[in-house]
Amino acid sequence: MRAYDIIMKKRDGQENTKEEIKFMVEGYVKGEIPDYQVSAWLMAIFYNHMTAEERYELTMNMLKSGDTVDLSSIKGKKIDKHSTGGVGDKTTMALAPMVASLGLKVSKLSGRGLGHTGGTIDKLESIPGFKTSISPEEFVKNANEIGVVVAGQTANIAPADKKLYALRDATATVDEVSLISASIMSKKLAVMSDGIVLDVKTGSGAFMKTVEDSEKLAKAMVEIAKLNNRNAVAMVTNMNQPLGDNVGNALEVLEAIETVKGNGPKDFTELCYELAGNMLEVSGIMTYDEAKKKLEENIKDGTVANLMKKWIKAQGGDSNVVDNPEEVLTISKDIVDFKAKKDGYIYTIDTEKVGIASMVLGAGRAKKEDEIDNSVGIKILKKLGAKVSKGDIIAKLYVSKISNVESSLSLLKEAYEIKNEKPDSYNSKLIYSIVK
Amino acid sequence: MRAYDIIMKKRDGQENTKEEIKFMVEGYVKGEIPDYQVSAWLMAIFYNHMTAEERYELTMNMLKSGDTVDLSSIKGKKIDKHSTGGVGDKTTMALAPMVASLGLKVSKLSGRGLGHTGGTIDKLESIPGFKTSISPEEFVKNANEIGVVVAGQTANIAPADKKLYALRDATATVDEVSLISASIMSKKLAVMSDGIVLDVKTGSGAFMKTVEDSEKLAKAMVEIAKLNNRNAVAMVTNMNQPLGDNVGNALEVLEAIETVKGNGPKDFTELCYELAGNMLEVSGIMTYDEAKKKLEENIKDGTVANLMKKWIKAQGGDSNVVDNPEEVLTISKDIVDFKAKKDGYIYTIDTEKVGIASMVLGAGRAKKEDEIDNSVGIKILKKLGAKVSKGDIIAKLYVSKISNVESSLSLLKEAYEIKNEKPDSYNSKLIYSIVK
Repeated sequence: MRAYDIIMKKRDGQENTKEEIKFMVEGYVKGEIPDYQVSAWLMAIFYNHMTAEERYELTMNMLKSGDTVDLSSIKGKKIDKHSTGGVGDKTTMALAPMVASLGLKVSKLSGRGLGHTGGTIDKLESIPGFKTSISPEEFVKNANEIGVVVAGQTANIAPADKKLYALRDATATVDEVSLISASIMSKKLAVMSDGIVLDVKTGSGAFMKTVEDSEKLAKAMVEIAKLNNRNAVAMVTNMNQPLGDNVGNALEVLEAIETVKGNGPKDFTELCYELAGNMLEVSGIMTYDEAKKKLEENIKDGTVANLMKKWIKAQGGDSNVVDNPEEVLTISKDIVDFKAKKDGYIYTIDTEKVGIASMVLGAGRAKKEDEIDNSVGIKILKKLGAKVSKGDIIAKLYVSKISNVESSLSLLKEAYEIKNEKPDSYNSKLIYSIVK
Repeated sequence: MRAYDIIMKKRDGQENTKEEIKFMVEGYVKGEIPDYQVSAWLMAIFYNHMTAEERYELTMNMLKSGDTVDLSSIKGKKIDKHSTGGVGDKTTMALAPMVASLGLKVSKLSGRGLGHTGGTIDKLESIPGFKTSISPEEFVKNANEIGVVVAGQTANIAPADKKLYALRDATATVDEVSLISASIMSKKLAVMSDGIVLDVKTGSGAFMKTVEDSEKLAKAMVEIAKLNNRNAVAMVTNMNQPLGDNVGNALEVLEAIETVKGNGPKDFTELCYELAGNMLEVSGIMTYDEAKKKLEENIKDGTVANLMKKWIKAQGGDSNVVDNPEEVLTISKDIVDFKAKKDGYIYTIDTEKVGIASMVLGAGRAKKEDEIDNSVGIKILKKLGAKVSKGDIIAKLYVSKISNVESSLSLLKEAYEIKNEKPDSYNSKLIYSIVK
């Protein structure tokens, strides 16, 4: 078998066999196939894509290059959740205690943020004392006793994906459905959960800008899970505007806490209910409707908030944050307003730019090595379709270094488009489709 | 400027600027841009192609990476000729003294053979004593005094092309018109001739299998020459069967000698006349018709044969070969017949397989390092459209190692298709088109 022939087959639109895909992934990881052949193959995949079978083989070969995480010592059903990343996406923090309150265990490995999107691990670390680096024993103990544990990834999961991703990142071969889906699923399938819920963000702040592309990605991922005999459901959800109102680490923790107490923003609350309903259904514990009804009760009577406290405490955090978030969290007191320059309706929001505006303030990382500042961020007061008059405050910037304010404000200016007409309500639809 | 952005532009079907192409080629030659980014770029070019301007920039940047060959000390008009390579293509050997007899100087750098095609340098070396490695002084002297000199390439011409070609060869990005045309023309334009005649072979024994693709390549090369203010003409010629009757080094020298004496095979003789006519016209010395008429006279009265003798002698070869080729050349006496297995017409010839059948006998190289045997080869007795009866000899194999015969014969069996119907005469048309 020669890498050359494998590249040529894919180049000419033919399907690569199981053996050929294994040969490429294994050979690349072992250093037997050079970077330049793999990058040519990846570019050929970019154009000719992969079939469901090819994607599955790619996924499984990347998965097999590393460790798997055995969750069998955690009693009961375990669910995993993945978001393709967006702006203001604090979902895991609120959703984890919600679904745990319904009897479903959340034992999740999360990542840090890069570029215009934040990461759950960074957000959780704005709670004083919260540890995201915990031992496997603690991981299992917390999952069993509390029902929620969220930790940073330490195991050697899918190193082939890491190596391939670095190459894709240097050769403009990142944004292709087969390669994205295999990359995500190689890591998701390595964790032995009973079900996987995939939140595929779509729109101006997402990796995938169109609903069509996002649906393709959603289908590809669910298909891979099925070929692996795993339950999965993918939801294509809105990222044409930030999710909820707050962007930035401590600000997002605050919003997640308000939401588990029943006082969260409408869009974010609704998304949590939808995801929870699907998570419980995909795990076979209760129906979607039962889950939503029970969740409403658990939020009302404080069950979810209490569970959140226990979770935070078990991971070393100050659980008083749930009752008194504004006292415990460090949120900057220096606020700069971003105001409307004319009358009209908020017509479009380039949400990626909003994410970068927050990053520029210090809330995110441009490069992996960058330090982040949990106290800064942006609070959105006017979202898509809102009527504004000249001078109205659209957003509040929570700043710490004054030197960052100007570039952040100018990004927001570019991000917001105000028109005399109302935007199509389709652009702010919360959920576009559900793929099972 | 970043290689990443240049790759992405080409990936997305946009045009790369002059500066971007320069950045890629220069950066690659200097080792500043890694193989894996260049191979991804090449694969993107494979799919999205290049505009005439991009091809020209690529050509010129490859050309500028090395030396140019100044021919100004050679008096009179100098012509260069290039063939994209075929089976039985001994054209340069016959054509060079032909056009020299018409007052046009041929000072040509040629290559060796690889794979199913032979190389002029290898063929010439079957003449005892013939030197293809000569000093620049001799090169100029011979061109001035005799009008013909053909040498192996020693100058550092287009090293960027060499490096890029090796990468293309490993990443299935060889067969794309922009990349092929830029590769050929970077070397052709580096030699400062007054005109260039390009023989683009098309068909089963050629690099380009269809007339359509061959015409695209012909146009691309002529366009590049024009952008460099150079005269060029490209002819798309038949390679659905071997050119002439003989395949193999000494056998082809024999045939070239017969042809300059007026006794060559019809197709090969006609091709030489066509090329000569175009070469004289593109150089502005005489019209196509005048050239063909004068050439006929020069062949009849022995002018061309005499010129061939002088050329061979000047390069150290035994010029008696022209008068007594069968005495001077070493051609194997061991002959194996390849016979028709049924009655019918020669319907198709997979000419690449014929070339490999000759290579397998020892006439060519599978790898660059292989030694070749000038005495072996194949004489074709039946070409496209010939009527054969079962048992008729289709071809004679001139062999030296008996161990090679079986695989050579079985390749010929695969190569020849005999049917009850005659093939379309279009398939054996000698010249498909002329691009000026």
